[in-house]
Amino acid sequence: MSTYRLLIEYDGSSFHGWQIQPDRPSVQAALEEALATALRVSVSVVGSGRTDAGVHARGQVAHFATEAPVNLFRLRRSLNGLLSPSIAVLDVAQAPDGFHARYDARQRLYHYHATVQPRALDQHMRWAIRPEPDWELMNEAAQHLLGEHHFGAFCLTKSETTNRVCTVEYAHWVPELRDGDWRFEIAADRFLHGMVRAIVGTLVDIGHGRRQPDSLPEVLASRDRREAGPAAPAHGLVLERVTYEDDELETRA
Amino acid sequence: MSTYRLLIEYDGSSFHGWQIQPDRPSVQAALEEALATALRVSVSVVGSGRTDAGVHARGQVAHFATEAPVNLFRLRRSLNGLLSPSIAVLDVAQAPDGFHARYDARQRLYHYHATVQPRALDQHMRWAIRPEPDWELMNEAAQHLLGEHHFGAFCLTKSETTNRVCTVEYAHWVPELRDGDWRFEIAADRFLHGMVRAIVGTLVDIGHGRRQPDSLPEVLASRDRREAGPAAPAHGLVLERVTYEDDELETRA
Repeated sequence: MSTYRLLIEYDGSSFHGWQIQPDRPSVQAALEEALATALRVSVSVVGSGRTDAGVHARGQVAHFATEAPVNLFRLRRSLNGLLSPSIAVLDVAQAPDGFHARYDARQRLYHYHATVQPRALDQHMRWAIRPEPDWELMNEAAQHLLGEHHFGAFCLTKSETTNRVCTVEYAHWVPELRDGDWRFEIAADRFLHGMVRAIVGTLVDIGHGRRQPDSLPEVLASRDRREAGPAAPAHGLVLERVTYEDDELETRA
Repeated sequence: MSTYRLLIEYDGSSFHGWQIQPDRPSVQAALEEALATALRVSVSVVGSGRTDAGVHARGQVAHFATEAPVNLFRLRRSLNGLLSPSIAVLDVAQAPDGFHARYDARQRLYHYHATVQPRALDQHMRWAIRPEPDWELMNEAAQHLLGEHHFGAFCLTKSETTNRVCTVEYAHWVPELRDGDWRFEIAADRFLHGMVRAIVGTLVDIGHGRRQPDSLPEVLASRDRREAGPAAPAHGLVLERVTYEDDELETRA
C-alpha cells in the first residue's frame, strides 16, 4: 500500500463544494471517479479540508492510498485528461507512509479577492464591494485576530464538542496590481466552517463604519456567530496553499 | 454635441466579438443598448478596433457623441447596472471635440496568456501549450517582428486595397507569477485581422522546433497567410491597453 499526495486547483463555481454529496457535483467525487478510471480500482480521496460550494482552490492538497502500480507522470496526465476543465491536478507525488492530508497539515493559507471597480474578466473570483471600505481600518481590526483564539463567533457549525480554537499567523489586506483590487490573506493552523467568509464580512462592516475596529475582541469573546457580520460571498475565496511539517518546498505549483 | 470616451473590460467568451452582428451578442450592441436606456436616446459606439469572437479586453476604448446631458459618474454606474457581468465600464470621461477612438489611437497593446500547466481558475483566458516550447527561441524569433513591416502573412482579410503595414514596438514572452505561466506582450501602432493569434501560433511552431527562428523574415516577405503558422486560440488573447496622442496618463484603470 502506497500513499500519494495530490496538489489540486479548481474553480468552485462548478461544484457544490469539496465533499461528496448525493446527486450534486463535488470535487472529491470527480477526483475519485477519475482515479477509479485511471487506476482501474476505486480509492478514497481525503482532502486537507472541505471547501464550501463556490469556494475555489489553487493549492488544495489531498491523499489516497492504493496497491495499484502508479506512474506519477502518467497518472497526472490521465487525470487531467479525464477531469473537467474546472479541476486541474498540478502535481502527483509519492507521500511518506501514513501521510494524512488533513491531520498532518500545519498551516492553511486563504486569499479573499475583492475589488471596488467593476470587473468582467475575473468576476467569478472577486467580490465587488461598494462603496470603497477603509482598508487601513480593516487592517487595524484584523490585528485582533492574530494568535490563539476561540473562533466560535466565526463558525457556522453548532456542535458543542467541536474544537474551535485556532491560531492565526497573519491576516491583512494588501492591494493587488490593478487599481481598486485588494486581497485579504489569512494563514492559520486550522479554519472552522465558514470562518474566512465571516471574518471578511465582519471586516468589511468595519471598513464601512458599521462597526468599530476595536469591537473584534468582544465579538471573539461572545463565541456567538450572531455577533459577527454577514458572510462574504463564496466566489471571492481561494484556498491558496496547505503546508505540511516536512515540506522543504512550498506545496504550491 | 459632446464626445465621451469609455474604458471597457469584457470577457470575450460571452460575445461573438466586438462588432454588431445580426442575431448574435456583441459588445458593441450591448453597450449601445445600455447607453440608449441610460441616456434615453440612441447613440453609436465606435471602438478602437474590433476584437474577434472569444477575445477579451481589459482596456478597450470606445467613443460616442450625444447632445443629451451626461453626468459621468452616474452614467458609469447606470451602465454597470444595466450591462451583464461580462462587461464592465471602468471609466466614462469627456473627450476633446472630434475625438475618434479608432483614428486617434497611437498604440495598441495585446497580451496573450499561455501556460504549460493544467489550470482550472483561469482556463477561460489561458492557452494550455504542451509540450513546453522553447521560450528563448521564441523571443529570439520575435525580434524579427520589430519595426515597420508588411504583415500580410499574418492577416486574415484578403482585400488587396487594405494597408497591411504595421510598426511593432515590442514583442516578447515574459514569465508570469505562477510557475509555467507565460504571457506574450506585443505593442504596435495598429493590428490586422487575426494578426496576434497568427503571430503567437507561428512562434509556438518555432518553440516546438517545427520552424526555425530565422524563418520569420521569409514568412513576412511572402505576404501570404498560408506561410505563417496556425492561429492560436482566441481565449488567450486580451486587448490590454489603447494609447492616444494626448494621453498624459495611461488609459488603463
